[in-house]
Amino acid sequence: LSKHMHRDLERLQRLVLRMAGYVEEAVYQAIHALKENDRRLAERVVEGDYRIDQHENEVQEECLKILALHQPVAVDLRRICAVLFISTDLERMGDLAVQIAERASHLASSSQSIVPSRLNTMTEKTTEMVRRSLDAFVHSDATAARAVIRMDDQVDADNSAIIDELIQRMKQSPDNIENGISMFSAVRHLERIADHATNIAEDVIYLVEGEVVRHHPEALGDG
Amino acid sequence: LSKHMHRDLERLQRLVLRMAGYVEEAVYQAIHALKENDRRLAERVVEGDYRIDQHENEVQEECLKILALHQPVAVDLRRICAVLFISTDLERMGDLAVQIAERASHLASSSQSIVPSRLNTMTEKTTEMVRRSLDAFVHSDATAARAVIRMDDQVDADNSAIIDELIQRMKQSPDNIENGISMFSAVRHLERIADHATNIAEDVIYLVEGEVVRHHPEALGDG
Repeated sequence: LSKHMHRDLERLQRLVLRMAGYVEEAVYQAIHALKENDRRLAERVVEGDYRIDQHENEVQEECLKILALHQPVAVDLRRICAVLFISTDLERMGDLAVQIAERASHLASSSQSIVPSRLNTMTEKTTEMVRRSLDAFVHSDATAARAVIRMDDQVDADNSAIIDELIQRMKQSPDNIENGISMFSAVRHLERIADHATNIAEDVIYLVEGEVVRHHPEALGDG
Repeated sequence: LSKHMHRDLERLQRLVLRMAGYVEEAVYQAIHALKENDRRLAERVVEGDYRIDQHENEVQEECLKILALHQPVAVDLRRICAVLFISTDLERMGDLAVQIAERASHLASSSQSIVPSRLNTMTEKTTEMVRRSLDAFVHSDATAARAVIRMDDQVDADNSAIIDELIQRMKQSPDNIENGISMFSAVRHLERIADHATNIAEDVIYLVEGEVVRHHPEALGDG
């Protein structure tokens, strides 16, 4: 029985990782479309979202099947719960990528470019957080997960600086206001993607240590 | 054993409902603070958030305990999974209430009032969605849950109209830009609260019918 369960758990893990691959690609493409005014790439992100949604459903059905069939306990039970939460976070990251792509399409139709100077660093840190949180999950590495959580402050700082820059440019000219609002939305979506990476990192710590980290900032020390 | 499980499930349900009560109060107070420039009320929302976080942890620990102790199947297993997801949605609604309260504090320090005309109707519909989604959960009522999901389009329409109004006012005067951005953020947070109510309604349908509704719009017919 236990052998069957571990085979099912491994299949589940592969399914989550395939889903994560689609999400990372969607986030990357959405931001690239935003920076390059690439409307066709933006449309591809929107069209590809159904795959992510299908995977979320599949992952969650697999989790329930394993719970019902094998009735796991302790770390195996925690793994299933972590996967349930991670699949929800991944699906929302996919939605956020779609929303960024929609803003990118909107901005691509305008001649006025309004790409903030710190968008590149914010993007790099965010995609790194996403990748590292998933690596931490694959390797059940709580130390790596804590490093991801600490990166979130840097993304928040970029986000604030970008908002200040956008406000300045909107004040300079009313012609910048509509594009400024669109870019502001897109950047907020990006910041929320980093938040979801943080959630995944918290789930990894819970999975490894059985300790709930969400809402316990003191548990973030490397102890 | 089954008697014990149902006693535990009832206690779990009471715990979720207490958490939901705190969340509903936080959302109500945050929006009231936003409309009335009431900074003290906004601070109360921020200070009260720890209770919601504590409840999320407690609910999730109870879920794991019930899974490990009673190894439920079928509808009981679905109920636990629904509660896990609902607690996550409630916690995020609480966070969004805090973010609205922070925008309210920021706006309260300004003399320039910029409350959009449709904020009232959007607020009423959103709080109604929250209340109804939780009622649907309590009564395991999939029909009521479907009605909640259909309301989300109205909230989205209010949201679009409010954004248009804010853009117009920002174009009228650069002095409106910073406040306009703050109000825009607050309204987006409100819209996301409605999205989380939709998620809860989807979880109720799944709980009652064992059918995954997320990403299956065709399953929304009353059939």
